[in-house]
Amino acid sequence: MGSEDSKPVRIGLLGRGTVGAAFADLLGERAGAVEAATGRRPEISGALTRGDGDFTAILESSDLIVELIGGTDPARQYVLEALRSGRPVVTANKQLLAQHGDELFAVAREAGVQLRFEAAVAGVIPIIRTIQESFGVTEISKVFGIVNGTTNFILSEMAASGAGYDEVLARAQELGYAEADPSDDVSGADAAAKMAILARLAFHTPVTLSEVTFEGIEGIQPDDLAYAKELGLSLKLLGVAERRDGGISVRVFPCFLYRGHPLSPIEGPFNAVMVEAPAITEVTMSGPGAGGVETASAVLGDVVSILAGDAPVHETRVELPLVGDVTSSFYLHLEVADQPGVLARLATVLGDHDVSVKSVVQRGMGDEARLVMVVHECLESRFAQALEALAGLDDLRSPPRSIHVIEEEY
Amino acid sequence: MGSEDSKPVRIGLLGRGTVGAAFADLLGERAGAVEAATGRRPEISGALTRGDGDFTAILESSDLIVELIGGTDPARQYVLEALRSGRPVVTANKQLLAQHGDELFAVAREAGVQLRFEAAVAGVIPIIRTIQESFGVTEISKVFGIVNGTTNFILSEMAASGAGYDEVLARAQELGYAEADPSDDVSGADAAAKMAILARLAFHTPVTLSEVTFEGIEGIQPDDLAYAKELGLSLKLLGVAERRDGGISVRVFPCFLYRGHPLSPIEGPFNAVMVEAPAITEVTMSGPGAGGVETASAVLGDVVSILAGDAPVHETRVELPLVGDVTSSFYLHLEVADQPGVLARLATVLGDHDVSVKSVVQRGMGDEARLVMVVHECLESRFAQALEALAGLDDLRSPPRSIHVIEEEY
Repeated sequence: MGSEDSKPVRIGLLGRGTVGAAFADLLGERAGAVEAATGRRPEISGALTRGDGDFTAILESSDLIVELIGGTDPARQYVLEALRSGRPVVTANKQLLAQHGDELFAVAREAGVQLRFEAAVAGVIPIIRTIQESFGVTEISKVFGIVNGTTNFILSEMAASGAGYDEVLARAQELGYAEADPSDDVSGADAAAKMAILARLAFHTPVTLSEVTFEGIEGIQPDDLAYAKELGLSLKLLGVAERRDGGISVRVFPCFLYRGHPLSPIEGPFNAVMVEAPAITEVTMSGPGAGGVETASAVLGDVVSILAGDAPVHETRVELPLVGDVTSSFYLHLEVADQPGVLARLATVLGDHDVSVKSVVQRGMGDEARLVMVVHECLESRFAQALEALAGLDDLRSPPRSIHVIEEEY
Repeated sequence: MGSEDSKPVRIGLLGRGTVGAAFADLLGERAGAVEAATGRRPEISGALTRGDGDFTAILESSDLIVELIGGTDPARQYVLEALRSGRPVVTANKQLLAQHGDELFAVAREAGVQLRFEAAVAGVIPIIRTIQESFGVTEISKVFGIVNGTTNFILSEMAASGAGYDEVLARAQELGYAEADPSDDVSGADAAAKMAILARLAFHTPVTLSEVTFEGIEGIQPDDLAYAKELGLSLKLLGVAERRDGGISVRVFPCFLYRGHPLSPIEGPFNAVMVEAPAITEVTMSGPGAGGVETASAVLGDVVSILAGDAPVHETRVELPLVGDVTSSFYLHLEVADQPGVLARLATVLGDHDVSVKSVVQRGMGDEARLVMVVHECLESRFAQALEALAGLDDLRSPPRSIHVIEEEY
């Protein structure tokens, strides 16, 4: 920001949906505080909406661009053009960063301007700043958490009420916690985009959305939640990015957590992220994962950092391979024929695949008989083979159902 | 930092206790990462210990000072001299900042150099950066939390084991969670210093240690914890800094929290801090509150920010009065004579002082009879008067005991 302190900073605002409108309001309210903190008064010099405004004119009359359109097209072109013209950009656009991060960071570096995006992951929780700045030289071993509020609301409600997925989803839509087309959230795709961003920052390695495997919550059954509650487990849709076997693994999956795990009490539409490293043990941060004014606050924090003259974050780069097959514990739900020797036959199949049973509970009789197990950590590929072998037995009345479990005690 | 990128950054280290030694080790390990992130390789150019080293010589041969001596004297003189000589300073010294913050910030501002102190509050939890940078222009309404790990360990252990204060304190000392002279921690004085720092940053107003009222945990009885558990309450030593009645209130006191409160699951030597504001709802951050390498990590994060060229944080200033009398809910433990009409007489005294009872449970009979109450929010001064009036009744076998309660449901 080269201009003198006396002139206002002209902000070009792209997008005027919920977050865009909230940002414009918040900026108006806090303009005095921004001026006190940075020496420069911000003002919105132009706003682009779907129906109105000309990007080139807005760009030319602005010192800084705030991109809140969402999606990759035309957001990508706009952000690239802004960076190339030497204007810093603040964006809340997770898809843009997850799919085109390499290109965007390279252009920002070349142009010597800042690209900030705190609002793209976990709303107002300052996880981006914490990873990039506080822990910028820390050898992070794992970043994981609840980064999608819609699914956390649905899972919390299912666990509390015993209601089924479809019923709770409808309630979430009524309350505005889920969109009319919820597929991006409930499939885990939204969380995958956020984990791609966090993994890139934590491990200083290029990660793109296509490399993140994800599994959603559409298949979760109310009885899984009921049995799990008896075992002291709570279900979360987790995003996990971690160092494993000399590479990294970045995944999204529904996962049971034991009581006492720091993420276990996170309920409703909240998000929470944990960062682990030998030198910090673990830090957990939680807060609202969405919301107009909360997201706008995160955007404003980035704008203030740029106006205050903070240095761009240096990108260091290593190339770490993505590890496909990792170990995990699992919850396993088997609808079994109520016959002598069933448990022995199933346990033998599991044992043949090096899957060892931690706990098993039998429920119901006759046509209702089922076994609910937790198995110790094993290679996911071995577990998948064990599931296939189980499915081939005559002892099962339906295909086996499994959900990840984090066994660690906290 | 004016020198060229090729030269190493010379760090003068004051203090080589647990944190100092951990910092020196960590800096050695991460020097390459620091260079990759900032373009400059750090090295320790000199270290001052109690028995060895000359401050002036260390200062002259350094570009940046890391102060880890603790205490205010000679730390204050050293830090002031370093700032006046144009060298940025990173410190973990809460007493120094809580007692001499005004002077230190003024000198840093005049000299145009940075004074950073993430490690002074809540160890590796990035609460200072979050308040100053992410929420630097947010109108924070409340910052509160568990900022002393020693007392949180003692209270967790007392609640879990039913053991008394003295026994658990001895265990904490054995485990290294409490010092040989634990008074600074258990009296609440340590937490008060941290809250003075957080209040200053959150409200942009000068707060010094002498303005923070504090109450410790020495008087907590095992039966208070037992009764509270039945009521679904957990006990924490809370630091609270909040806007109240046009001013601010900054206090430290033991406090019961209802289950579901985000601070309720924080156990053992961990710290956790919550920030509330209309524009962010609430953000909670938790992690280890102490530990050599964790504290050293926080110091290193500050060093990296300075080397990266982040702008000094602008200090804005308003003058907010400290509000003495605020409202709170209370837990009240009364050892009563087991006679007809006792509850009515006690309730009348409370009512006369505008103190209204939320719940009451009678326990024991005869010489063991006691009433355990939770009262609704009321002015603390009125509650103190009510306690005095109760103590004057013949119905009590011992002076009334009370502990703060946060009633809010989360």
